[in-house]
Amino acid sequence: MRTALLAAAAALALALPLAAQDEPKGAPSPADIVAAAPRADWTAIPAEELLVMTLAPDADGKPRQVVIQLIPAPFSQGWVHNIKLFARAKWFDNISVNRVQDNYVTQWGDLNYDNPEAKGKPKPLPEGLKVMGESDYIVPKSLLPEADLSQDKQAPSVSVQLLAGVDSYAERKGFSGGWPIAGEGFGEEGKSWPTHCYGMVGVGRNYSPDTGSGAELYTVIGHAPRQLDRNIALVGRVIEGMQHLSSLPRGSGALGFYSEEEAAKRTPILTVRVASDLPEGPASSSEAEGQQTRPKFEYLSTESQTFATYAEAIANRRDPFFIVPAGGADICNIKVPVRRVAEQK
Amino acid sequence: MRTALLAAAAALALALPLAAQDEPKGAPSPADIVAAAPRADWTAIPAEELLVMTLAPDADGKPRQVVIQLIPAPFSQGWVHNIKLFARAKWFDNISVNRVQDNYVTQWGDLNYDNPEAKGKPKPLPEGLKVMGESDYIVPKSLLPEADLSQDKQAPSVSVQLLAGVDSYAERKGFSGGWPIAGEGFGEEGKSWPTHCYGMVGVGRNYSPDTGSGAELYTVIGHAPRQLDRNIALVGRVIEGMQHLSSLPRGSGALGFYSEEEAAKRTPILTVRVASDLPEGPASSSEAEGQQTRPKFEYLSTESQTFATYAEAIANRRDPFFIVPAGGADICNIKVPVRRVAEQK
Repeated sequence: MRTALLAAAAALALALPLAAQDEPKGAPSPADIVAAAPRADWTAIPAEELLVMTLAPDADGKPRQVVIQLIPAPFSQGWVHNIKLFARAKWFDNISVNRVQDNYVTQWGDLNYDNPEAKGKPKPLPEGLKVMGESDYIVPKSLLPEADLSQDKQAPSVSVQLLAGVDSYAERKGFSGGWPIAGEGFGEEGKSWPTHCYGMVGVGRNYSPDTGSGAELYTVIGHAPRQLDRNIALVGRVIEGMQHLSSLPRGSGALGFYSEEEAAKRTPILTVRVASDLPEGPASSSEAEGQQTRPKFEYLSTESQTFATYAEAIANRRDPFFIVPAGGADICNIKVPVRRVAEQK
Repeated sequence: MRTALLAAAAALALALPLAAQDEPKGAPSPADIVAAAPRADWTAIPAEELLVMTLAPDADGKPRQVVIQLIPAPFSQGWVHNIKLFARAKWFDNISVNRVQDNYVTQWGDLNYDNPEAKGKPKPLPEGLKVMGESDYIVPKSLLPEADLSQDKQAPSVSVQLLAGVDSYAERKGFSGGWPIAGEGFGEEGKSWPTHCYGMVGVGRNYSPDTGSGAELYTVIGHAPRQLDRNIALVGRVIEGMQHLSSLPRGSGALGFYSEEEAAKRTPILTVRVASDLPEGPASSSEAEGQQTRPKFEYLSTESQTFATYAEAIANRRDPFFIVPAGGADICNIKVPVRRVAEQK
């Protein structure tokens, strides 16, 4: 397995500047590679696929805003439909962060929904929600083509996206349309699903066959709990403001829910808006003035050669701090680069 | 790879209660398995291998104590010697947490050592420190025997510890003496090293060939940065109070160091003591009275059948919440169970 990945690495080294090959200790870091990406490798994220979540200001009075990128089709299923419906019905306004379990998840929603530490009545759900089935956790088609890691030609980017398939949780792992994906089987016979990496956002649910509506959401704040893949719906990822969710005090109640005694630790969520519903405006001044404008983001195309070079550099760190390159990388350590921009192309 | 691991799973299922096999949806959770472990499967951690680190009380005035288990030989090398020397020289007293980088590390030490956000002079190091080389990151011997995952017999626990060897960062992964270990090669020809999982504690260092003294320590607060394996010394893990380090505000300076403007966010570390230097006494009252007594901990022997059953249950979740068992597990998702006890056996 490692031999195959090293073969891909050797092929890809050709893509690096000559100087980097002469001086392996001075090779560009993954961040350097992203910084040098051509403009064309960046893909705009549609405003319809961005959620802007505003928490109550922190103890110092500083605003806290979290931006979530919603996962597109074919993974969005009905859950993303529901989440936008909740946002537009203002159902998410005045909910709270109710659970922070160390090395696991931060979860927000209705304080009284399925919370072992609360006794109140859940608030009614809006109309028009779609009900999903357990089979919807998986896309019935492989989005990951078979690896071709032969040494005698430069590995096409699609092969490197596959990362030689070494994974503890799936036959194959890779990237598709900007998202980390696992899978098994090939093409129409195959299956695909997104992976529970740090910062990914999922849909809280009760015991099977409940699949969750999207009213209750969580994000991963520790080591990737990949055992949840194919068992819970993933609907997006936090692309800005993650620290506002990961650094919250841990709850001491069951499953990391805040107990009634520590109710003051529940962070209020003031509003959640779909970015396309927000007015255009200068990003820099909006937070300070307390007025929300539409944020604009781009991700580095996972189909680009830059992404392949970046992923390879993560798997084989040659920048000055490193002595022994690993020769591989966990899919959750290859974070898809996302950046805020003033104007979208 | 997955076939091999599933074979091990099938063999191990025999070790589960009959009722669990009849009703797979009601199978015991990993926590249930640990709770049912026989007394003999728990191993006392020597007081000489425990560090008690006391942070300044939190904003509510509540005490914050972190307990670190130091890694034993052959991985301890000279770094653990140095760390105990620092503790006993009271060199660690009145240092601070200077860096909190989201999804990466919380780091503490001398504010002025190798901190891009500070300009003062580092405090002098005590005498008697050992200087380590880069080869000391690796033990020149494999602690992981070859897998034997044949279906026709119950897998011996040592095989399950090996977890079928599926890993993105090493030829093999497993557990030895209570620690997560990666390796390559076999026996005397092999190599072994501990892995950078959540909560593991490592030694901050400057660029190669510096290997760090142990004065500067960090713990992993996000997805396992396994690319650091074999590149930095690991010296232990946080076994209690991890939330005091993982929920700290992230630093906005370079590499997550706190900038001078946010100097107030640097959490003071009041004392760091080797547990064997603390007096015996009742654990329950010690924190409240502000008097430190020697804490006692045990870990679940990674050589026990209970640990093998536990690891297998993590790789194949059959407890009620799960629909699709993963069929594998990342080594960093198989946390070695550790518990505080009133009296050691």
